[in-house]
Amino acid sequence: MLSHVLLINCSDQRGLVYKITGVLYKHEVNIISNGEFVERNFNYFFMRTEFSGEFDRERLLQDLYEALPETVEIRLTDKRKKNIVLMATKEHHCLSDLLVRHAFNELDATILCVISNYDTLQELTAKFNIPFHCISHEGISREEHEKQILELVQQYRPEFVVLAKYMRILSADFVSCYSNRIINIHHSFLPAFVGANPYAQAYERGVKIIGATAHFVNDQLDEGPIIAQNVIPVAHTHSAREMAQAGRDVEKIVLAKSLKLVLNEQVFVYKNKTIIFE
Amino acid sequence: MLSHVLLINCSDQRGLVYKITGVLYKHEVNIISNGEFVERNFNYFFMRTEFSGEFDRERLLQDLYEALPETVEIRLTDKRKKNIVLMATKEHHCLSDLLVRHAFNELDATILCVISNYDTLQELTAKFNIPFHCISHEGISREEHEKQILELVQQYRPEFVVLAKYMRILSADFVSCYSNRIINIHHSFLPAFVGANPYAQAYERGVKIIGATAHFVNDQLDEGPIIAQNVIPVAHTHSAREMAQAGRDVEKIVLAKSLKLVLNEQVFVYKNKTIIFE
Amino acid sequence: MLSHVLLINCSDQRGLVYKITGVLYKHEVNIISNGEFVERNFNYFFMRTEFSGEFDRERLLQDLYEALPETVEIRLTDKRKKNIVLMATKEHHCLSDLLVRHAFNELDATILCVISNYDTLQELTAKFNIPFHCISHEGISREEHEKQILELVQQYRPEFVVLAKYMRILSADFVSCYSNRIINIHHSFLPAFVGANPYAQAYERGVKIIGATAHFVNDQLDEGPIIAQNVIPVAHTHSAREMAQAGRDVEKIVLAKSLKLVLNEQVFVYKNKTIIFE
Amino acid sequence: MLSHVLLINCSDQRGLVYKITGVLYKHEVNIISNGEFVERNFNYFFMRTEFSGEFDRERLLQDLYEALPETVEIRLTDKRKKNIVLMATKEHHCLSDLLVRHAFNELDATILCVISNYDTLQELTAKFNIPFHCISHEGISREEHEKQILELVQQYRPEFVVLAKYMRILSADFVSCYSNRIINIHHSFLPAFVGANPYAQAYERGVKIIGATAHFVNDQLDEGPIIAQNVIPVAHTHSAREMAQAGRDVEKIVLAKSLKLVLNEQVFVYKNKTIIFE
Repeated sequence: MLSHVLLINCSDQRGLVYKITGVLYKHEVNIISNGEFVERNFNYFFMRTEFSGEFDRERLLQDLYEALPETVEIRLTDKRKKNIVLMATKEHHCLSDLLVRHAFNELDATILCVISNYDTLQELTAKFNIPFHCISHEGISREEHEKQILELVQQYRPEFVVLAKYMRILSADFVSCYSNRIINIHHSFLPAFVGANPYAQAYERGVKIIGATAHFVNDQLDEGPIIAQNVIPVAHTHSAREMAQAGRDVEKIVLAKSLKLVLNEQVFVYKNKTIIFE
Repeated sequence: MLSHVLLINCSDQRGLVYKITGVLYKHEVNIISNGEFVERNFNYFFMRTEFSGEFDRERLLQDLYEALPETVEIRLTDKRKKNIVLMATKEHHCLSDLLVRHAFNELDATILCVISNYDTLQELTAKFNIPFHCISHEGISREEHEKQILELVQQYRPEFVVLAKYMRILSADFVSCYSNRIINIHHSFLPAFVGANPYAQAYERGVKIIGATAHFVNDQLDEGPIIAQNVIPVAHTHSAREMAQAGRDVEKIVLAKSLKLVLNEQVFVYKNKTIIFE
Repeated sequence: MLSHVLLINCSDQRGLVYKITGVLYKHEVNIISNGEFVERNFNYFFMRTEFSGEFDRERLLQDLYEALPETVEIRLTDKRKKNIVLMATKEHHCLSDLLVRHAFNELDATILCVISNYDTLQELTAKFNIPFHCISHEGISREEHEKQILELVQQYRPEFVVLAKYMRILSADFVSCYSNRIINIHHSFLPAFVGANPYAQAYERGVKIIGATAHFVNDQLDEGPIIAQNVIPVAHTHSAREMAQAGRDVEKIVLAKSLKLVLNEQVFVYKNKTIIFE
Repeated sequence: MLSHVLLINCSDQRGLVYKITGVLYKHEVNIISNGEFVERNFNYFFMRTEFSGEFDRERLLQDLYEALPETVEIRLTDKRKKNIVLMATKEHHCLSDLLVRHAFNELDATILCVISNYDTLQELTAKFNIPFHCISHEGISREEHEKQILELVQQYRPEFVVLAKYMRILSADFVSCYSNRIINIHHSFLPAFVGANPYAQAYERGVKIIGATAHFVNDQLDEGPIIAQNVIPVAHTHSAREMAQAGRDVEKIVLAKSLKLVLNEQVFVYKNKTIIFE
């Protein structure tokens, strides 16, 4: 049976869980899982409920809005596959990992297309019968290039945009079109080694651990809310190239994990952090 | 203000969260944190609520029992330091780690005493002004030794018994006196390398990872519900002795983490597994 | 320039490194990297040297044999791509990971073919233009099935056979044809959870960590020398199915890492363990 | 039998290992372990040899200097306990971990004394019969405070100074007195979250991993060569205080590991990185 996800956030006050579950009880739905969290610094309440059953969507929402504070935010979605657009540049490891999962029905999403500023990954994408669009940045301004990309993305009307090693910075304008709906994977550790050639920096510094961070993109480069992170140990015997290879392995796993959380509606964004119901 | 922990488990049915939070709302307490989990294989419900406020304990419990199924289990405790007894043999690493945390008020427990079958750790324990009892197993039967230990433990009336590298097997009789209240730390991975000289076995096998598992003790040796686990990488260049040292470092961290969870009443035991609210 | 790998192992004695590097110095080759290890329990010596330069292979080997104990084992190989055969059953995650790395020239090997007892993975393999052979085990005896597989493998003359989730047990006869040249990836931790439905066992036990072990195959099921291991944390909120998915992610990374070590001739096998020069 | 450690580094050239092991062979010592590494970016050679046996130290060194390039650096030490001084401020976790290891003879060092700018840790240190010196920074200039500390340290003539959560910045002058001989443990990841209140920053950013880095101190704050690193996973449910506690657990293990490497003479420093022979 189709299940539904209810996401609620508002200022904390006494009785919120009682009131929310009261509405659900009245509408006779079956709660599958339930989670709450209160951010103590700001007394702010989050609740994620997954439920099944027949119900009148409009009346359920109306009852919730009546029971809860005026400033509440409520999202009620069906638990179904989301439509996503992937963007990449030349590196294949994240893209191929997602294409394979998609092909075997392991991604809770439909990949609408792949967009890249190079044609390097066209052949790979074609193997999986996904539309591939190359929009080169050469010979045009940054603004013009981004405008073309944005128009193309918007035609597909995706719910999420996944930057699977898309190596160009997006402007605040672009990001604002998909607020908290663009997911990026970043080498190394945020906020460390920001800048060019991070693996060369990591090699020169002799780091013993290489990491990856998946995060939502906001208008500060690489500084949006973190969704998932992981690391892999390295040693001085690794060349910068081998460190990058180790990094790619952790990047693809972390990106896939973050997508799973986002696509299942398990992630709230609050200020610059995530609240994740696992 | 003192806070309270309410632990409830019963067969799942519609409306449980609504009914429970309704009782709490009626008694006008303030929920600090709330968590629920339903074990799907058995449709079994778990809920942990931390709350503060003035309330009538008897009436709150009575209202809960009236609202919930007959087979419900309810635990309502104050969030205060628990009394614990530590047992050890000769290895110091877990004991010293707990004694230091205790001395700096970082353990949510009062250590009543340390009991050992050797006097090796007497000097260490004395540094921290904790009573130390040596009950040697030499010259007496296993049954007699355990009887003496049990009598001593019972005098202290601990809420939990922590086996901080106590290297003798406890009988089913002993364990039944403290059901799901004895915590053990086990080298390597459960259920791997059960038996003598696990690090020699690990060395000969050339393992690349050494682990530790903290678990409740039941009547099957090393097979009780797992509370926490972690690992540390090793290599062929490590001798069996160095593997054991690496193992000790992970053991003490894992035991301390499991104690934190247990002492904060974050752990349910269900069949042979734990449900942990973090 | 082409580089070469020299692997030497023998009983330890004074002067081995001096004698070996003396031969290399005389032949005027350039050492790129050098590693030695002595297994202390058995006083057994291992050395791996990578070098470049022009040299007379026969005379170099002759000089080495003259300088070293009679019982020495010497392997001298070019550092070039190895030929490998992949075997799989129905799960795609390890196979697709290796096919993608191969397609992007990131695997130090040429995949000659994929052999499976089902046709499930034929379509995936075809995308990457690798021959796929389905040899069904249905309707024939275990011996007959393995005979057919072995004949097919032998036609390809691979240097290594990679069991990328091949779910049937190989007989001692099969294994003896490719001694220390068959690499397997095993769910969970060796030697834990041997047997059917390991993730169901792990779920019921409430493990907090899921692992994967890559190992050479010997005639004891799942008990050959370990090449690489890693883990991923899980929780009671993971279903057995989600634990298996987490396990698949760690399996594919561990298998790829072990292959990198083996294909680069970085691994010695000694008794039931590996000595790895990283 | 006493063993010795020989550390050699110089520009790489053909025949170095042959020449070095030739000298050792001539002096009839027994090599216990041997490791070499060439940093490819700068063609720079490192070798660490542990050996036992009777030998004439002056003649061995003379023979090595004659056989090797003029610019070579050679260190020849006995493998014995090193003398160290610990410095701390108010946090006990690293200090207590080292004091306990020292008390049980697990640290390859003699702790000469503990120096702090507060008296908070005096009672702990006294338990282990180690001299404790409190040099308060209050009422005197930074320069004067550091001068007093330096004079005290120098009286003890330590081989290494360990900053076990010493929370004041040392000047370039101080550091130059113990070049590559001061070890520090740093919360979080270098070079991330440099500055005050790192755990508050980590909490606000919602990091999913907390780390620790042990490094040599140079004149750039927190930017010296990295010796060891590790991480521990955290979640949004952790308060900044709980993140700090998790961080302390990883800090003490990482500091102890880095000390083991340094005290065993397993670490070379080259430019701003370490070469570690494990």
